[in-house]
Amino acid sequence: MFRELMTYDNAKKLLFATLDPQPLGSEKIPLLKAYNRILSEDIITKLDIPPFNRSTVDGYAVKADDTYESEENKPTTLKIIGTISVGKCPKIQIRKNNTVETVTGAPIPEGANAVVMVENTQKQENNLLIYRAVTPDENVMKKGTDLKKGDTVLMSGQLLGAPEIGVLAAIGVNYVNVLKIPVVSVFSTGAEITEPGKSLAPGKIYDINAYSLSTAVKESGGKPIFMGVIPDNEVALKNALKQALFTSDIIITSGGVSVGPRDYTPKIVDSLGKPGVIISGIAVKPGKPTTIAFIGNKPVFSLPGHPTSALLIFYLFVRPVIQYLSGNKVISEKIVKANLAVRLFSAKGRKTFVTVKLSRDKNQKILATPIQTGASGAITTLSKADGFIEIPANQQFIDSNEQVTVTLLKNKKV
Amino acid sequence: MFRELMTYDNAKKLLFATLDPQPLGSEKIPLLKAYNRILSEDIITKLDIPPFNRSTVDGYAVKADDTYESEENKPTTLKIIGTISVGKCPKIQIRKNNTVETVTGAPIPEGANAVVMVENTQKQENNLLIYRAVTPDENVMKKGTDLKKGDTVLMSGQLLGAPEIGVLAAIGVNYVNVLKIPVVSVFSTGAEITEPGKSLAPGKIYDINAYSLSTAVKESGGKPIFMGVIPDNEVALKNALKQALFTSDIIITSGGVSVGPRDYTPKIVDSLGKPGVIISGIAVKPGKPTTIAFIGNKPVFSLPGHPTSALLIFYLFVRPVIQYLSGNKVISEKIVKANLAVRLFSAKGRKTFVTVKLSRDKNQKILATPIQTGASGAITTLSKADGFIEIPANQQFIDSNEQVTVTLLKNKKV
Repeated sequence: MFRELMTYDNAKKLLFATLDPQPLGSEKIPLLKAYNRILSEDIITKLDIPPFNRSTVDGYAVKADDTYESEENKPTTLKIIGTISVGKCPKIQIRKNNTVETVTGAPIPEGANAVVMVENTQKQENNLLIYRAVTPDENVMKKGTDLKKGDTVLMSGQLLGAPEIGVLAAIGVNYVNVLKIPVVSVFSTGAEITEPGKSLAPGKIYDINAYSLSTAVKESGGKPIFMGVIPDNEVALKNALKQALFTSDIIITSGGVSVGPRDYTPKIVDSLGKPGVIISGIAVKPGKPTTIAFIGNKPVFSLPGHPTSALLIFYLFVRPVIQYLSGNKVISEKIVKANLAVRLFSAKGRKTFVTVKLSRDKNQKILATPIQTGASGAITTLSKADGFIEIPANQQFIDSNEQVTVTLLKNKKV
Repeated sequence: MFRELMTYDNAKKLLFATLDPQPLGSEKIPLLKAYNRILSEDIITKLDIPPFNRSTVDGYAVKADDTYESEENKPTTLKIIGTISVGKCPKIQIRKNNTVETVTGAPIPEGANAVVMVENTQKQENNLLIYRAVTPDENVMKKGTDLKKGDTVLMSGQLLGAPEIGVLAAIGVNYVNVLKIPVVSVFSTGAEITEPGKSLAPGKIYDINAYSLSTAVKESGGKPIFMGVIPDNEVALKNALKQALFTSDIIITSGGVSVGPRDYTPKIVDSLGKPGVIISGIAVKPGKPTTIAFIGNKPVFSLPGHPTSALLIFYLFVRPVIQYLSGNKVISEKIVKANLAVRLFSAKGRKTFVTVKLSRDKNQKILATPIQTGASGAITTLSKADGFIEIPANQQFIDSNEQVTVTLLKNKKV
C-alpha cells in the first residue's frame, strides 16, 4: 500500500470519487447570519409584493377619468378631501371629482386608480388644480406586480450575498435553511514542534502548519478546529485522530509522513477504519509523501511537514474538498497571467509546482520570478510567495519569457 | 444647503477629503484570529530561523573530512556511536571516524559538519559504509540561514493570510497588533417598514435595507451593528443616531431622504454636530437624494429607501470608505467585461448606473442585459442583478454590442 506514487490527476480523481457528495445536511439559522452561506431550500413567497397597490410618487390619488381634460393651460379642479400617509391603511374613499394628498409608498385609497405627481398640480386651499392628465394605473405599483404569492424567489443551492438577503427580508423571511459548513480539525505532529508563545527549548522549532492551515481552512469557507501540536507518541496521535473524527468532517495533519522511524501517522490513520489510506504518495513536487485516507466518509489528509509544501498541497487537494462539501459551486479561482522570469525545469516524472513572486518589468508586464527553494528557506519562501505555477509531469521545462498561469496564494496588487 | 446636486466625481472627492485617514487605531489579538486583518506593527524576529544547525535529510551526521575518499565501489567505514532524534539537544560529540544516525529536522551534534543521506550508506552492525563523499555543510541547514535575529519579517500594513500567519507562528509570535475594523451601524426608517418575521399590518412592507446593507458591510470588511427599523418620529430617530455615533465609526440610514413631509433624516443628522451635511443630493441615477454628513470624524450616509438604489450607492460610496478606514490597500474589485445586449440611454446630466444580468450568447461571449427597472421591480431587480454598468454624465448612450465593464454585485459563474 505504501510508497506507490500515484499521478496528480489520478489522485484527484480517486479523492473525489471516494467523497460522499452531501454528508453534511443543513441547519436553520437567522437571516442576519446567513451571509456567504448556501440555501438548502427553495424559497417561495407567501405574500404578494407589494402587498397592496402603492403610490410610486408624491402627489394626489385620483380617478384617472377625472383628469382626462387637464391641460397645461386649462387645469381640471378637484376637491381635496384629506391626506394619506405611508404605513397606514387609508379609511378614505375617493368619489368622482375628489382627491387625497399622498406620498411615495402609501397605499392607493379605495375608488382611486392613479396618482398625479405633485409637480403637475397646484393647491388652492381645499381645491387642487391638475395640469396634466393621468391614465389608469399611472404612478401606481399594483399589488403583486413585483412578486406573486407562490412565486419561487430563490432556489436551493443559491449563495447568499447582500442582494439575496435583502430579497429574503422583503418577503418576511427571518430564518433560513442553509447547508452546514464543513468542520475541519487541524493539528501538527513532531517531537520538535513547540506552540508559539511558549519558550523554545534547545532542538525545538515553533509550529507553523497548524496556524497556516487552519487559516487556509477559514479562507476556503470551512470552520477550523485548531488542535495545535499533538505529543509525539502513537497513543496521543491515535487519541487526537479519534477525537477529530468525532468532532469534525475533515481532518488535516502535518508532519510524520516521510520514511523516518517516527513517521507513523499514515499507519495509525489506516488502523482507524475503512477504507483507510487510499492515496499514499503523489507524483508531485513538492508534497510527494502526502497521504490521503478515508475513515468512513471523512477524509483525512496527512500533509508533509515543510510549511510551503503543506500549504501548496492544501490548495491543490484540501481546499477543493472543503468547497465541494460546502456545496459551493462558485469557486472563485484567483489566477493571473504572467511572464516567467527564468527557464524552469520540472522534477522528472512528477507534476512540479513552483512558488513565484510577482512584479512588473520595465514594460509594465507582470513577471513571475521563482522563489529560491530547496532545503533552506522554509519560512522566507512562505512569506515571499505570491502564488505558484505548475509544470506538467511530461514537460521538461518552461522557457524564460513564456506566459504562465499563476494561482495566487494571497491578495496582492501587482 | 439642501437639493443642490453635486457631480459624482466632486462628491467622491469631497467625501475622501473630509475623511480622517486613520481614526481607528489598533488592537492586540490572538494570532489565530488575525486572518484577513491588517498588521499595525513591523514584525522583527527575536530568534534565528532555524534556531540551530539542522539536518535536512535522514542519514548520518559526520565530519565531512572523514568521507572524502568514499566512492561507489570503495566505501569508507565509520563507527556508529549513537542515534539522534528530532526535538532533543544531542549530548553526543562526533570525533574523527565516528558518526551518529540522524533524521530530518534533528540538530547537528557537536563535531559534525555534514550529513550523509541514508541512501548512500549501508549499516553493518556498529559500522557504517559510506559510498559517497559529502562536503562541509552538505545536507545541513545552518542556524539563521532562513531568518536572522533582528530581521524584519513582515511590515505594518500587511494583510494577514494563511502564509503570513504561518510566518508569524514560525518566529514564535502568538499575539499581533492589527488595525481595528470599522464598526458600522445600519438602520432603516419609514412608518411603513416592518421587521421580517413579524406579521404584516395593512399598508406596511417588510424591511429590506437594514438586512442587505448590513450584509454588504460584512462583505466589505466592516463590522455591522444591525439596528433594524427605527420608529417614525424625530425623537426616536435622533436618539438612534446619537446611540450609533456613540457605538460606531460609520452610520448608514436608509429612507427618509426624499422631499416628503416625513423626510427629516438629513435635517436631524445635520443638527447633531459639525461639519454636518456636506453632500446633499448627487447627480447620479439612481440614488439622487443620497445625503452624506460628518459628525466630527464619523461619516453618516443617508441612502434612498429603494433597495436597489440603496445597495448601489453603498457600493459606490460606502464600501470604499469602509475599506479605506480598514487600512486595506488591496481592494479586489470584482469586474468583468461584457457586450451590452441593447442600446442604453443615460439620465440627462446625471451619471447613470444600470443593473444588468449576465449570460452567454450563442458565440459564448458574455452578454450584459439591463434589468427592467423603473417604479416596479424593487425586489426582483435586486434578486436578478448580477452587477451594474455606468454611463458617464456627458454621454448620451451606450450602443448595443459595445463592450462595457460590469462591476459585480455577487459571485456568479457566467
